[in-house]
Amino acid sequence: MKRSDYFIPTLKENPKEAEIVSHRYMLRAGMMKQTSAGIYAWLPLGLKVLKKIENIVREEQNKAGALEVLMPTIQPEELWRESGRTDAYGKEMLRIKDRHDRDMLYGPTNEEMITDIFRSYIYSYKELPKILYHIQWKFRDEVRPRFGVMRGREFLMKDAYSFDLTPELAQISYQKMLLAYVRTFARMGVKAIPMQAETGPIGGKLSHEFILLGKNGESKVFAHKDWMEKDMAAPGVSYDDTEALQKYCDGLTEIYAATEDIHDPATCSIPAEELVETRGIEIGHIFYYDSKYSDSMNSRIQNEKGELVPWYGGSYGIGVSRLVGGIIEASHDESGIIWPEEIAPFDVGLINLRVGDEACDKACKDIYQQLQAAGKDVLYDDRNSGAGEKFADMDLIGLPWQIVIGPKGLKNNVAEIKNRKTGEKREVALSEIVSIF
Amino acid sequence: MKRSDYFIPTLKENPKEAEIVSHRYMLRAGMMKQTSAGIYAWLPLGLKVLKKIENIVREEQNKAGALEVLMPTIQPEELWRESGRTDAYGKEMLRIKDRHDRDMLYGPTNEEMITDIFRSYIYSYKELPKILYHIQWKFRDEVRPRFGVMRGREFLMKDAYSFDLTPELAQISYQKMLLAYVRTFARMGVKAIPMQAETGPIGGKLSHEFILLGKNGESKVFAHKDWMEKDMAAPGVSYDDTEALQKYCDGLTEIYAATEDIHDPATCSIPAEELVETRGIEIGHIFYYDSKYSDSMNSRIQNEKGELVPWYGGSYGIGVSRLVGGIIEASHDESGIIWPEEIAPFDVGLINLRVGDEACDKACKDIYQQLQAAGKDVLYDDRNSGAGEKFADMDLIGLPWQIVIGPKGLKNNVAEIKNRKTGEKREVALSEIVSIF
Repeated sequence: MKRSDYFIPTLKENPKEAEIVSHRYMLRAGMMKQTSAGIYAWLPLGLKVLKKIENIVREEQNKAGALEVLMPTIQPEELWRESGRTDAYGKEMLRIKDRHDRDMLYGPTNEEMITDIFRSYIYSYKELPKILYHIQWKFRDEVRPRFGVMRGREFLMKDAYSFDLTPELAQISYQKMLLAYVRTFARMGVKAIPMQAETGPIGGKLSHEFILLGKNGESKVFAHKDWMEKDMAAPGVSYDDTEALQKYCDGLTEIYAATEDIHDPATCSIPAEELVETRGIEIGHIFYYDSKYSDSMNSRIQNEKGELVPWYGGSYGIGVSRLVGGIIEASHDESGIIWPEEIAPFDVGLINLRVGDEACDKACKDIYQQLQAAGKDVLYDDRNSGAGEKFADMDLIGLPWQIVIGPKGLKNNVAEIKNRKTGEKREVALSEIVSIF
Repeated sequence: MKRSDYFIPTLKENPKEAEIVSHRYMLRAGMMKQTSAGIYAWLPLGLKVLKKIENIVREEQNKAGALEVLMPTIQPEELWRESGRTDAYGKEMLRIKDRHDRDMLYGPTNEEMITDIFRSYIYSYKELPKILYHIQWKFRDEVRPRFGVMRGREFLMKDAYSFDLTPELAQISYQKMLLAYVRTFARMGVKAIPMQAETGPIGGKLSHEFILLGKNGESKVFAHKDWMEKDMAAPGVSYDDTEALQKYCDGLTEIYAATEDIHDPATCSIPAEELVETRGIEIGHIFYYDSKYSDSMNSRIQNEKGELVPWYGGSYGIGVSRLVGGIIEASHDESGIIWPEEIAPFDVGLINLRVGDEACDKACKDIYQQLQAAGKDVLYDDRNSGAGEKFADMDLIGLPWQIVIGPKGLKNNVAEIKNRKTGEKREVALSEIVSIF
């Protein structure tokens, strides 16, 4: 994509309203624009990142056997009366009356609606287990939205829901999602630690938050120091191998990690010198809620004996739009964002140092076309502006690689290649550039 | 995908509330479930079709040079006060008060918001032309929602907005979108005719509706009989070749076609015997609105002389969720849906006539794996149910091809292949099946 055809309205100044680095960089890199308090429009660069994250989440959910559906944003309040949660979200629930004065709401989560779908069609244990998920915009009317997409009001969430015949089988679904989350975040190049957490308004008996460590984290967390060194790459465990799955999950969750709500210094058995206290950002949250929604919404299935029994479930969320900010919090420097390769909006940035110079224009055009032909997604800065501005913009935007072409290098038929993360620069012959990427 | 692992809750009976065939078949094929009047949850099969349509729309918008953004569903009412359209949608506009009593609304369209984004960043003619689009859920609070996704309340729309320095340049953007729409619908295997139409609340001077002909169409339309035979495959016109673009669009739009609102028998010059009166379904609508939003929202750009001048624009919508129903209206028979190949939820359906029979299970498993390895998306009906139910379900779901494997054919090492559209059946050696698809 040529920058001149594209739309990346970068800002030179730090926006005053942005208190944390991800919010500042997302505004400055022209990734998004606030349209109301805590509500954002995603501009092309931001949307590309959001879609990449969304697709990784989707692929890993599918691999775990979850089936994608798509529930609407607007729900009837009556479903929530059934579950007894009408007031569970307090004023964070955005309530709406339609033209016929019916009570509606903008869904903050979907336990009620998915239970209603489930009970409409599934009557027998033979159709279990099922994990259904969707990736849809949610709304929580935060009293003081801030930190950009980290605590926005309209946000994109992946939420999955599992349905099983017994609590024991439900544990397997829980473990599948836990493993899927480890793999999801590892693919995004970030380290997210599953921590024991409170269940809150979702209810239930067991819950883990996936926490991205970062000094701007919203809450205090406590973790055994082994976590700091731990390789989070998920092993070759198959989702169908129940035993290996359980072993993997037990091994992971037995290393101590807990959010502030749960952590109790008086009872925590980890020696002080092995306990790390830091801050973290919640990017995923999984809950086992037992038969709560089966009971409250009177949804029953037939077991092997033909008896009507409750089912056991869990819900599993990933903050897709929040992750965009979370990953920036975890991966940036003073010049801007440093995108992990898998979610970078473009693979490579190409800078033409002297637009209008025949040799520079030609060399850039050739490299641009060659890289595109090789399947690379390239952002070509072809603007007629100063080198300083182009360098600063490209660092801010944070693509993994930069190729810089100018009159000086061209005399020797070389371009400069820069690795955004390490800052390492080297000269490469023009003819060899494509083979590098 | 094995049917036993999947979730397609087909219904045998026609749902009473469904008045038209697409609504009936979408419910019966387990594609969606109504969650409130005119609001639907998309089940896995329906969502697959919706995503395929969405992706075709996206790809063709990108090819035409439009840039994807994503605006939020919830908008501040104050933007609409600026444009003077606060009451333009009457009670169809879903109004919301947030917890701080601010007036918000669920966007029925986005002219105001995109103008606000545009005026925040773009100041010079040098950055034009620009076409920005998004694919997002909209809400129109229909007084009597019906016909399923054809007139729902929460619906998925692609809306694009163009920005140009002069009315003449704006015409080029209009033509680009017209060509992109022809290509978009042709790829989906449906014939959509651009018809002169009224501009309605969007305002402006020029408008074409893209109409899918069908006897259940919501409105009467009039078209020259030449349209009936016309090959809608878009020619090799480049979006950058302004002259060819104009010639193509003029050639297309000079063939008479108009909606009932516009058609006037008293002035229409087409001889009666050449005029076809039929019904149609609107699946796209393009508007040229001149400087309406530039003026009403006080958005100005600098021209070559440094003067602040208005910009000229248009908006371009495609009803993405509505298309799912529209295509079914145009492509079905008494047994069910007949999906055009490009948007079919699966490429092939595989029916095992005797689940549990060792030879049948093995043959099906082999074919299933071979087709998957060849990159085909296969729905394998491995349920332990009767042949009649499986045939009926597969016809209802409407995949382009069916492979039927049973004990009788296996004695001769053959399977039966059925083309869903033509109904043609033939026997094919098991060893040759994969090479056919």
